[in-house]
Amino acid sequence: MGKQYRDQEYLVKLGKRIIEIREAKNITQEKLQELTGLDTRQIGRIERAETNVSISSVKLIADNLKISVPELLDFSKLADK
Amino acid sequence: MGKQYRDQEYLVKLGKRIIEIREAKNITQEKLQELTGLDTRQIGRIERAETNVSISSVKLIADNLKISVPELLDFSKLADK
Repeated sequence: MGKQYRDQEYLVKLGKRIIEIREAKNITQEKLQELTGLDTRQIGRIERAETNVSISSVKLIADNLKISVPELLDFSKLADK
Repeated sequence: MGKQYRDQEYLVKLGKRIIEIREAKNITQEKLQELTGLDTRQIGRIERAETNVSISSVKLIADNLKISVPELLDFSKLADK
């Protein structure tokens, strides 16, 4: 197993899910970045599945989207765009 | 916000939850490490909340514990040991 294990398919689904919820709540990417205080490009990189995001950052994003982590990570309703 | 955001309280809960499910399924830490193929000490470090584990590794652990990620991250039933 390489230095850090990475599940790109899962990261793509996570990115789509964050965009889906963020847009449903009319929150811009800039606003979410501001709310979370994460590094300016980090939200974009997470949404584009360019980074193997930590569970702490996933929790921070869920908190600021005002949903639970399990709800954020429930991809069952994710439309296959 | 420092280099990488870290939610230690959440990481502690995650570690407890993994131990709780792993033990309920009679899977040793060594067995889970073997199943996941993660670095030998990584499971122990995750369970002791010593590492800000990536979402990919959380998914890998959930898969090998044969539960969904949302279920693994549902701490509502976590006994406050």
